[in-house]
Amino acid sequence: MKKITLIGVILALILANSAFARGEKGKIKARQGQMWIIALNMGVLGGMAKGEIDYDADAAQRAADSLAALGQIDQTLLWAAGTDADSIEGTEALPAIWSDGSKFMDIWGNFTAAANEMQAVAGTGQDALGPMLGKLGATCKACHSDYRTP
Amino acid sequence: MKKITLIGVILALILANSAFARGEKGKIKARQGQMWIIALNMGVLGGMAKGEIDYDADAAQRAADSLAALGQIDQTLLWAAGTDADSIEGTEALPAIWSDGSKFMDIWGNFTAAANEMQAVAGTGQDALGPMLGKLGATCKACHSDYRTP
Repeated sequence: MKKITLIGVILALILANSAFARGEKGKIKARQGQMWIIALNMGVLGGMAKGEIDYDADAAQRAADSLAALGQIDQTLLWAAGTDADSIEGTEALPAIWSDGSKFMDIWGNFTAAANEMQAVAGTGQDALGPMLGKLGATCKACHSDYRTP
Repeated sequence: MKKITLIGVILALILANSAFARGEKGKIKARQGQMWIIALNMGVLGGMAKGEIDYDADAAQRAADSLAALGQIDQTLLWAAGTDADSIEGTEALPAIWSDGSKFMDIWGNFTAAANEMQAVAGTGQDALGPMLGKLGATCKACHSDYRTP
């Protein structure tokens, strides 16, 4: 009887753990997907800034709108405690993100502010893209330097 | 000499192909990440609608804002031709998405419209969530039924 109870408890723990893992994996996939959305849209704007892609005001605006929209997504849901690289596989998010004095969300705020600035100028001409890409890129770098595994 | 040229061409093709694969993988990860962002935020709203999570107007609004923001991201960049399940691994996107008469982007439009409706009411009370979740869920189902591998 005790054996059956023990097996039941173990099975419940395995199931709960697997549900937990699925939940955490979803958060990691969600935030990595965000990074890809940023990369793809920055790629469009960067290609136009460098002249590798012909400047197209509508396409530039769409890319900037996408970056700005991404900045409106609630990040607290995605960066849940316990989803750092020391606690779980498949992520490069350093535990420092969740430590006292972390500047992580401030830097995300800087990214969203720069994305809004890009949104305001991306459709006005090719010249506007370079300086704003520099500003956006600096926020990427700031976060990756301190909060992503090297 | 011919042999060296041939090896050079083959190497270039391998490199180009790998860069292509990375690009396509990024698009797939970006759109799968989007689905996770939808799932996580729908999970918050669903939990509140069912009473499994206490209704919290601010948290409900944040979740609805996130869904609405996602609807503002340019989808054409992510659903590039050649990134269907028949052409590439790691995706469940059916080629029907890209076929003539595809309703894929119309259904995405229905999702974004429903997300905007949810955004307008999510903070007004728990009762508002259920009907809007039904509307949102119907757009998820419509797309998954016809455009995702079973």
